[in-house]
Amino acid sequence: MTTEQHPADLWPGERPEAARRLLLAAVDSFASRGYHATTTRDIATAAGMSPAALYIHYPSKAALLAEISRHGHAATLALVEEAVAHGGDPLTRMRHLVEGFTAWHARGHTVGRIVNYELRALPPEDFAVVAELRRRIEDTVKQVIEDGVAAGLFEVPETRTAARAVTSLGIDVARWYNERSSESPEQLGQRYGELVLRMLGAPG
Amino acid sequence: MTTEQHPADLWPGERPEAARRLLLAAVDSFASRGYHATTTRDIATAAGMSPAALYIHYPSKAALLAEISRHGHAATLALVEEAVAHGGDPLTRMRHLVEGFTAWHARGHTVGRIVNYELRALPPEDFAVVAELRRRIEDTVKQVIEDGVAAGLFEVPETRTAARAVTSLGIDVARWYNERSSESPEQLGQRYGELVLRMLGAPG
Repeated sequence: MTTEQHPADLWPGERPEAARRLLLAAVDSFASRGYHATTTRDIATAAGMSPAALYIHYPSKAALLAEISRHGHAATLALVEEAVAHGGDPLTRMRHLVEGFTAWHARGHTVGRIVNYELRALPPEDFAVVAELRRRIEDTVKQVIEDGVAAGLFEVPETRTAARAVTSLGIDVARWYNERSSESPEQLGQRYGELVLRMLGAPG
Repeated sequence: MTTEQHPADLWPGERPEAARRLLLAAVDSFASRGYHATTTRDIATAAGMSPAALYIHYPSKAALLAEISRHGHAATLALVEEAVAHGGDPLTRMRHLVEGFTAWHARGHTVGRIVNYELRALPPEDFAVVAELRRRIEDTVKQVIEDGVAAGLFEVPETRTAARAVTSLGIDVARWYNERSSESPEQLGQRYGELVLRMLGAPG
């Protein structure tokens, strides 16, 4: 059992309540034991169900991992695209993007770890879907940097490395952040927003 | 089996060759299967030994993890302290520190992942040793930032958050870097050195 409050928007009500319980149980089990050492029986037990009941909803633990991973990546892509659609100059867009991306990985650090550290355990077809979502996140970040460079607001030696550093800072929050951290997810997001703008050479 | 070239300085020749083989086998097994799903039999087999022969050198797989983790942390602390002892102004020291720290996590990404992502699996007394090494790494980074601020070379809103961002960028390299990456560990180190100096508000 994790002490983390699962984000309220994690698997909202549309799907069967049993499937939602299984996803939450899978997150907790993968987080505490690691994906490879978790059995479908562990997940079913944590969800208060029988293994047979689990199989009604998911054919395997890989199917659970795939749904967690796809959902987590889709959620971060959505917030990154929303930050950009929010408008403003590239500086404002990048600030919003980093604030949201950082806060998401702090608030959802348990899910964030699974989503980012268990990629190699995904079945090939799910990996392809997730890789495409990751590419779109990276491309969105790169586009904002390029817009900023074109507008004379940013100045970076290598766009791809800079984009990588931006996403990397946010993703690594899932590794070290916990509820005892002195900064709230939002505070951390704001501070990281400042640091990233400087990193991209924005005027002070 | 990993395709990574194990850094040549990983467990140099002093210790018994069998112990060294077991450590390398443990690194490969933990990396491909995860710590929790790896058995001592897996490690012994990968090292071409019997489980009984493994126990001559290590009482448990936790003892192997602890040695890998202690060694990895001691190595990164050493390079961070060396970069600082190297001298020069805080700007030069920070550049050397980031270059070395980043390149280490790229070159040794397989070990870097185990060292950073399996902390919670360490027995308490080993965790305490490793936590102390991590604290010293973080403190060294913080000290260089504070020296830079005092010298008017850096300007950061919050030293602790900035120090965290510096180490975080380097550590996360272990997650995403692989041998197909377009940048060499040294190139990446140089680019990250540039990005970090900007992040800390160093004059352009």
